[in-house]
Amino acid sequence: MNVFDVGIIGGGVIGQGIAYELSKAGLKTAVFESGEIGGKATSAAAGMLGAHSENEKRDIFFELCLESRNLYPSLAKELLEQSGVDIELVQEGMYRLAFTEEEGRFLQSLADEDELEWHSRENVLANEPHVSEDIAGALWLKHDGQVKGSSVCHAYAKGARKYGASIFEQCPVFDVIKEGKAYKLVTSQGVFICGKVVVSSGVWSGFFFEKLGLRNPMKPVKGECLAIKPKKLVINKTVFYEHCYIVPKKDGTVIIGATSYENDWDTHPTVKGVSELMIKVQKIMPEIGSEPVVSAWSSLRPQTADGWPYFAEHPEHEGIFFATGHYRNGILLAPITSLIVKDMILKTNQYERYVHSFSLNRLLSDAKGR
Amino acid sequence: MNVFDVGIIGGGVIGQGIAYELSKAGLKTAVFESGEIGGKATSAAAGMLGAHSENEKRDIFFELCLESRNLYPSLAKELLEQSGVDIELVQEGMYRLAFTEEEGRFLQSLADEDELEWHSRENVLANEPHVSEDIAGALWLKHDGQVKGSSVCHAYAKGARKYGASIFEQCPVFDVIKEGKAYKLVTSQGVFICGKVVVSSGVWSGFFFEKLGLRNPMKPVKGECLAIKPKKLVINKTVFYEHCYIVPKKDGTVIIGATSYENDWDTHPTVKGVSELMIKVQKIMPEIGSEPVVSAWSSLRPQTADGWPYFAEHPEHEGIFFATGHYRNGILLAPITSLIVKDMILKTNQYERYVHSFSLNRLLSDAKGR
Amino acid sequence: MNVFDVGIIGGGVIGQGIAYELSKAGLKTAVFESGEIGGKATSAAAGMLGAHSENEKRDIFFELCLESRNLYPSLAKELLEQSGVDIELVQEGMYRLAFTEEEGRFLQSLADEDELEWHSRENVLANEPHVSEDIAGALWLKHDGQVKGSSVCHAYAKGARKYGASIFEQCPVFDVIKEGKAYKLVTSQGVFICGKVVVSSGVWSGFFFEKLGLRNPMKPVKGECLAIKPKKLVINKTVFYEHCYIVPKKDGTVIIGATSYENDWDTHPTVKGVSELMIKVQKIMPEIGSEPVVSAWSSLRPQTADGWPYFAEHPEHEGIFFATGHYRNGILLAPITSLIVKDMILKTNQYERYVHSFSLNRLLSDAKGR
Amino acid sequence: MNVFDVGIIGGGVIGQGIAYELSKAGLKTAVFESGEIGGKATSAAAGMLGAHSENEKRDIFFELCLESRNLYPSLAKELLEQSGVDIELVQEGMYRLAFTEEEGRFLQSLADEDELEWHSRENVLANEPHVSEDIAGALWLKHDGQVKGSSVCHAYAKGARKYGASIFEQCPVFDVIKEGKAYKLVTSQGVFICGKVVVSSGVWSGFFFEKLGLRNPMKPVKGECLAIKPKKLVINKTVFYEHCYIVPKKDGTVIIGATSYENDWDTHPTVKGVSELMIKVQKIMPEIGSEPVVSAWSSLRPQTADGWPYFAEHPEHEGIFFATGHYRNGILLAPITSLIVKDMILKTNQYERYVHSFSLNRLLSDAKGR
Ligand SMILES: Cc1cc2nc3c(=O)[nH]c(=O)nc-3n(C[C@H](O)[C@H](O)[C@H](O)COP(=O)(O)OP(=O)(O)OC[C@H]3O[C@@H](n4cnc5c(N)ncnc54)[C@H](O)[C@@H]3O)c2cc1C
Ligand SMILES: Cc1cc2nc3c(=O)[nH]c(=O)nc-3n(C[C@H](O)[C@H](O)[C@H](O)COP(=O)(O)OP(=O)(O)OC[C@H]3O[C@@H](n4cnc5c(N)ncnc54)[C@H](O)[C@@H]3O)c2cc1C
Ligand SMILES: Cc1cc2nc3c(=O)[nH]c(=O)nc-3n(C[C@H](O)[C@H](O)[C@H](O)COP(=O)(O)OP(=O)(O)OC[C@H]3O[C@@H](n4cnc5c(N)ncnc54)[C@H](O)[C@@H]3O)c2cc1C
Ligand SMILES: Cc1cc2nc3c(=O)[nH]c(=O)nc-3n(C[C@H](O)[C@H](O)[C@H](O)COP(=O)(O)OP(=O)(O)OC[C@H]3O[C@@H](n4cnc5c(N)ncnc54)[C@H](O)[C@@H]3O)c2cc1C
Repeated sequence: MNVFDVGIIGGGVIGQGIAYELSKAGLKTAVFESGEIGGKATSAAAGMLGAHSENEKRDIFFELCLESRNLYPSLAKELLEQSGVDIELVQEGMYRLAFTEEEGRFLQSLADEDELEWHSRENVLANEPHVSEDIAGALWLKHDGQVKGSSVCHAYAKGARKYGASIFEQCPVFDVIKEGKAYKLVTSQGVFICGKVVVSSGVWSGFFFEKLGLRNPMKPVKGECLAIKPKKLVINKTVFYEHCYIVPKKDGTVIIGATSYENDWDTHPTVKGVSELMIKVQKIMPEIGSEPVVSAWSSLRPQTADGWPYFAEHPEHEGIFFATGHYRNGILLAPITSLIVKDMILKTNQYERYVHSFSLNRLLSDAKGR
Repeated sequence: MNVFDVGIIGGGVIGQGIAYELSKAGLKTAVFESGEIGGKATSAAAGMLGAHSENEKRDIFFELCLESRNLYPSLAKELLEQSGVDIELVQEGMYRLAFTEEEGRFLQSLADEDELEWHSRENVLANEPHVSEDIAGALWLKHDGQVKGSSVCHAYAKGARKYGASIFEQCPVFDVIKEGKAYKLVTSQGVFICGKVVVSSGVWSGFFFEKLGLRNPMKPVKGECLAIKPKKLVINKTVFYEHCYIVPKKDGTVIIGATSYENDWDTHPTVKGVSELMIKVQKIMPEIGSEPVVSAWSSLRPQTADGWPYFAEHPEHEGIFFATGHYRNGILLAPITSLIVKDMILKTNQYERYVHSFSLNRLLSDAKGR
Repeated sequence: MNVFDVGIIGGGVIGQGIAYELSKAGLKTAVFESGEIGGKATSAAAGMLGAHSENEKRDIFFELCLESRNLYPSLAKELLEQSGVDIELVQEGMYRLAFTEEEGRFLQSLADEDELEWHSRENVLANEPHVSEDIAGALWLKHDGQVKGSSVCHAYAKGARKYGASIFEQCPVFDVIKEGKAYKLVTSQGVFICGKVVVSSGVWSGFFFEKLGLRNPMKPVKGECLAIKPKKLVINKTVFYEHCYIVPKKDGTVIIGATSYENDWDTHPTVKGVSELMIKVQKIMPEIGSEPVVSAWSSLRPQTADGWPYFAEHPEHEGIFFATGHYRNGILLAPITSLIVKDMILKTNQYERYVHSFSLNRLLSDAKGR
Repeated sequence: MNVFDVGIIGGGVIGQGIAYELSKAGLKTAVFESGEIGGKATSAAAGMLGAHSENEKRDIFFELCLESRNLYPSLAKELLEQSGVDIELVQEGMYRLAFTEEEGRFLQSLADEDELEWHSRENVLANEPHVSEDIAGALWLKHDGQVKGSSVCHAYAKGARKYGASIFEQCPVFDVIKEGKAYKLVTSQGVFICGKVVVSSGVWSGFFFEKLGLRNPMKPVKGECLAIKPKKLVINKTVFYEHCYIVPKKDGTVIIGATSYENDWDTHPTVKGVSELMIKVQKIMPEIGSEPVVSAWSSLRPQTADGWPYFAEHPEHEGIFFATGHYRNGILLAPITSLIVKDMILKTNQYERYVHSFSLNRLLSDAKGR
C-alpha cells in the first residue's frame, strides 16, 4: 500500500514538475512535502523566465535555460487543460537597462539577430514611458517572459494528482535507507517503499547529499521581494537593472525583486532589505515612488557552489536521483528539469548532454564526503 | 481647473466603464468615488457573465445581457493592451443542473440550437466528474462565461487614466446643483463644475434620485460569497443550481456564491450566511466538503423595484444621466452600459431601443417623488 | 421610528466616543457611518497618548491633552466591562531622544518635577539598549502612554450599543436640514429626524461646515505607518525623534509612524513614504533593520487651520455641534471630547473653558463662509 | 561554536517554554525549528486553560493541568517584563452548558466547593444573555481561563533569546546520533553537538521515538477553528457544550473551536469542518449567526495512545528527554512542562510524581519498538 515506483522528496515547483511528468508517464509516484505544496522558494519567486536576463555566456547552462523557457507556451496550455489553473504566462520580453554610456556599449555588444535587440533611450521611453529618463538605452530581450511560480507548482500538483500521484503534506522525510533494490523513505507519517527516489528539497536538500555520502553543496541565498499595485503606471515589459527587476503581473500587481544575502537562513522580509529594494526601484522608475505598496516576502534560493543545478543519479546508490540547486532559476528550469529526470528514470537517453553537464562530478572531483 | 465635460459619481465597474469609454471618446472626464475604486459590489462579484443563467425569458433585458456578454472577448484584449491588466475571461460555458425529473424536463424545454444544450446525467458526470451523482442532467449554457470583476474595474480605471480621465478617491459627492448649463458637484474635496453628470453610485444612488426629484428605486440585496482553493478537484465549467453557483477561476480558486438578503445594509459575511452556502454547495458537489476554505466576503447588490437597470437622462435636468440598478448583473452589463451612456451623451443614437426600454418611465409612471 | 435624540455623523473614535457617553446618559442616539465603524483615521493611528510628546507649550490645548490622557486608566476598565474589549492601555512612558548636544540642552530645559525627566545617554541605553548609540540622551515622558486606537473605537461602539445606541454602517449622510426644532439627516438609507446633530466625520467634516454656512477649515494630512514584529528586540517604551516614533504594542508588534503629507487625499501607503520611514527608523534604532516587516498602511488626519479641534455648537443653528479636527491626536482626545460634547448637549457646564477655547470663533473671526 | 548544553527539537509552545526555563537557569540552549517559531499547533490553539473543562476525573493528569493553570498569573507578569509581550491572560471562568435535564443533573454532581458551581438557567442567562434559551443551566468553572497561545510561545522565545538561547528557524533536525557523552543533532543547517536533547516536536515527534528505538505513540488529531468579530454580542466567559467552545478574546474577536479528526494529516480548514462548527455554535448561541466571520484555520494536535503527554528521559540513552504528546492541552500545560523538563535536566527532583506518572513505561510495557 505504501509502495511507490518513485518517491519524490520535496513538493516545490521542481518536485511537482517531476511528479507530473512521471505520473503522466504511468509511474506510481508519491511526493513527500515537509510543509505545504509550493510553500517555500517556489511561492517567493517573481516568476521570470530569464534565459537571457540570467545569462551572458553562451554555455550549456544558457542552452538549458533557453530550452526550458521555450517549453512554456505549450506547457501552459497543457496545464490549463489538466488542472484548470492558468499559470499566467506573459511573453512581452524584458528590458535590460543601461544607465551609463559604458553599460550601453556593453549591452550593444550583446545584441544578436534573434533574441537581443538594442533600443535607444528614446525608443525605450516611447515603449515604457515610466522608466527613468537617465537611462542610456536598453537591451530588449525579446522572448524572455514570465509566469506565476506558485501557479506553475499548483498546476503541476493538480495535474499529477489527476494522473494518479499521491501527495503527502506535513510529511518530512528523515531518512533514505536501502532495502533490497528499493529504498525506504522514513517520514513522520511512517515508512514508504519506493523503487526510485528523487531528492528535490530545495535548499534543504543538502542533508540528503551528506546522508548519502556526498558533500553538501547547498547554501541558502535569502531573497526578498515587494509587490505594489499601481493606480497609474501601466508597465508592459519586465524591466531590470543590476539585481533589481520590475515584473508586471497579469492581475495588475507589479513584483519588485530581489535582494540577495548568502548564508542567511532567515525567511522574513526585513526593514533593511525592503528599504534597499524600494530605494533602488525608485531610481529605475521614479514614479513608482507614489504607487501603493501591497506586501513584501522572502525565501531561500537553493544555491550550489558553482551556481548550477544537479541532474544526476547517485554514483553508488542506483535509483537515487538529485534534481536540485536551481538557485535563481527554478521556475524557469522546472519544465526541462522534469523532462530530464523522467529521461533518467525511464532511461530514454534524450537529454544526455544535460545529464553529462549537470552531473555530480563537480562535487566528487573536489573531495568526496566531508 | 476643476471643470470637466463629464463628472461620474461612483467608481465601481459601471462608473469606471463609463469613464473609460468617455475619455477614450475624447471627453474630459472625472470620477468621484467615496472610498476606493471598485471597493464595493464590484469586488464582491463572482464575475459570471450569465446572459442565460440569469434569464429564462427572451425579453429585451435578455438581449441586453447577451449583447454585453458578446462584447467581452474584444474588450478583454483592448483592456489588456491599454492597462496591462488581464480580466481573466473564461468561456467554458456553464452547467445549470437539474436534480429532479421535473427540473430536467423544464431545462430540456429551454434547449435551443445555438446556446443551450441538454446534457444527460452521464454526459455531465463525464465532463464534470465531481458534480453530485444525484443529478438528473444539466442544461449546458455554451457561451456564458466569466471574468474577474475587480480586474475589469481596475483595467477600465487604468485605461481611463491613460486617456486622460481624473479619478478622485475618498471623495464622496454630497450634492448636484444646477449652475447655468452645467452642474456643480459638491464633494468633500471641494466643488467641481461638470457639463454633464452620470449617477453610477450602485445601491447608494438612491439618494441622487431623491435629491433630483425622483422616487428612490434602489434597495440593497446583500450577497455573501466564499472562496475555496481545491487541492484535488479540477472544475472546468461554472456549475449552478438554484441560487448556488460554483465558479472556477483561472488562478485555481473557486468562488461559491451567493446568498441573498433584501433590505439588509450589513456588509459582513455572517456565520449564518456562510454556513448556508457551505451546506448547499456540498449537496451540489459533495467532494468540495474536503477542500480548503480560503475566505468569505459580502456586499450589496443595487436592486431596483423591477430588477432592471436604468439608462436614462433626467426628464427635467438635461445632462444628468442615471446608469445604475444592475442588481445581480453589473459585471456582465458594464460593457454595454458604458456604450449606452456614451451614446446618450454623444447623441449618436445607436442604442435607442435600450434607452427606450430602460428609461425612467418605470419610476415616473407610478408616482413622482415620494 | 427613525427619530433620535441625537444623530452623530461619522463613526470613528470621536463619533463612537460621543455615542457611548450620550447613550450612557440615557439619550436615544444614532451613529451614521459612510463605511465601516472605525475604518478610517481611527484604524490607522499608532495610538499614542502623547500629551507631552505632542506639546511643548503649556497652553490650554496641552491641558486638554493631559486631562484626556488621565481619563484613560479608568475608561479602560469601564470599557472592558461594558464591551469585553481590552483597549491595550500601556503606561510605560516615552523617550524623546536628543541626538545633538543642542537638542539635549533643549530637552533638559523642558524637564519638570512631575512628568518630564532628563535621562543621560547611559541611562537611556541601559533601559532601552537598542536605541542608537549616537544619542545624546533623552527626555523621559513618564506618564504618556498608548492604546490600540481601533479597539478604543470598537469598545465604545459595543458599549454604546449595549446602552441602546443604533449604529448604521454603509450609511453616508448627505444633508442636514432644519425641520422645526429638529433636523432631518438625509442618508442613503433614508431620512432620520434628530433632535440634535453632531458632526464628527473626521477630514470629511469640511462639507458640513460649508453646507451649514461656515468656512471649511479641514484639510487632510496623509500619514503612513509600518508594523514590524521583532524576533529579538524587546522594546519597552515608545521612543521618538522628530516625527518618527517607535511604538511597542502589547501583542509584540511594533508600530513605526508616521509620514506627513498635507493636502494629499490618497490613502495608500506608497513606496516613497514607506521607504522614508524605514530609513529614519534605522537611524534611531539600527537593529530594527534586521527585524521582520509585517505591513504598512495609511490614512488621513483631519487638520484644521490652526491644528486645534472644534468643540462647538453652531452659532446660528441651535442643536448642531461640531466635534472634529483632532489632527494628530484624536485617539488621545476621544475621552475628553466625548465628555465635552455630552456637557454641551446636556448643558451641564462642566467644561466651559474648553468650549470657550475650542469654539468656532477661530473660523468666524476670519471671514464667514467662503 | 556549534556546541550547546541542551538542544531542543521543535519550537512550538512546548519547546520554547523549555528553552526559556533552561536558559533562565543558565544553560546554553538551542532550539531547532523546521519552519517558523510557533507556526504549527501552537498558533491554531484557542488558548483555553481548561483544567476543569478538559477533565472530569480527579487523577494525576487533572492535578498536572490544575498546577499548570495556576502558574499562569505570575508567568504572565514575568513574560511581559522579559519580552514585552502580553499573553492576554483572561480569568473570567467558563460555562459548561447543560441542554437536557440529564446533563444538568450530571453537571450538578460535579459541583464542588472551590472551583465548580452550578448555575441555574436564569443565572446563566443573566450573566451571558446570548446563550441559547434552551439550556437547562451550566456548571461554572470559576478559575479556568485562557491566553493567546501564539503569544505565549513568542513571549517565551523572546525571553529565551534574552537569556542567551539560540533559535534556529527553517532548520529541521533529521537525526540524533550518540557522540561520546553528548549527541549530534543533524540538521539542514549542519551538525550541532548538544549535551542533552529534548524532543518537543509535536505530532512530528513520532519519528524520534522510532529512531531512538521506541514505539511511535503519536497520531495527529486535526482540529479546525473559526474566528468571528461580533458587532453586537458581548461575551464575557468562555462557553462550551460538548466539543464546541466559544472563547472571547481580549481584542474583541471570538474563537470558536474545534473539530476533531483522528489520523488526518491535512492542515487546511475544510468546507465540511467549518460548516459543522458553524451549525453547532448557532445552536449554543443563536445570535452568533448574524455576526461577521473573520477567518478559519486548522492544525494537528499531537495525541498519544492514552491521550497523556510524555515527560521522560530515554531509558537507554541518557540525556535524551521527551516532552510531547500534549494533545488538546499544550497551551495549558506549557508552564508545568517547562518546569518538569528543567527539573529532570537539573536533577532537582521537584516533580517526581509527574515524572513517574508520565513516563515512557506506558510505551515500553506494551511492546518495545515495532
Ligand atoms: C526572492 C526570490 C525570487 C526568485 N525569482 C525567480 C524568478 O524570477 N525566476 C526563477 O526561475 N526563479 C526565481 N527564484 C528561484 C526559484 O524560486 C527557485 O529556484 C525554485 O523555487 C526552487 O524550487 P525547489 O522546488 O527546488 O525549491 P522549494 O520551492 O524551496 O521547494 C523545496 C520543497 O522541499 C520541501 N522539503 C525540504 N526538506 C524536505 C524533507 N526533508 N522532506 C520533505 N520535504 C522537504 C520544502 O518544504 C519545500 O516545499 C526566486 C527565488 C527567490 C527566493
Ligand atoms: C455577492 C455578489 C455576487 C455577484 N455576482 C455577480 C456576477 O457573478 N456577475 C455579475 O454580473 N454581477 C454580479 N454581482 C452584481 C455586481 O457586483 C453589481 O451589479 C455591480 O458591481 C454594480 O456595480 P456598480 O458600479 O453599480 O456598484 P458598486 O460596485 O457598488 O460601485 C458603486 C460605487 O459608488 C460609490 N459611491 C456611492 N455613493 C457615492 C457618492 N455619494 N459619491 C461618490 N461615490 C459614491 C461607492 O463607494 C462604490 O464604489 C454580484 C454582486 C454581489 C454582491
Ligand atoms: C498615520 C496616523 C497616525 C496617527 N497616530 C495617532 C496617535 O498615535 N495618537 C493619536 O491620538 N492620534 C493619532 N492619529 C490621529 C487620529 O487617528 C485621528 O485624529 C482620529 O482618528 C480622528 O478620529 P475621527 O473619528 O475624527 O476621524 P475618522 O477616524 O477618520 O472617522 C471619521 C468617520 O466619519 C465617516 N464619515 C465621513 N463622512 C461621512 C458622512 N458624510 N456620513 C457618515 N459618515 C461619514 C468616515 O467614514 C469615518 O469613519 C494618527 C493618524 C494617522 C493618519
Ligand atoms: C484547533 C486546536 C485547538 C486547540 N486548542 C487548545 C486550547 O484551547 N488549549 C490548549 O491548551 N491546547 C489547545 N490545543 C492544543 C495545543 O495547540 C497543542 O497541544 C500544543 O500547541 C502543542 O505544542 P507543541 O509545541 O508540542 O507542538 P507544535 O506547536 O505543533 O510545535 C511543534 C514544532 O516542532 C517543529 N518540528 C517538527 N518536527 C521537527 C524537526 N524534525 N526538527 C525541528 N522542528 C520540528 C514543528 O515545525 C513545530 O513548530 C489546540 C490544538 C488545535 C489544533
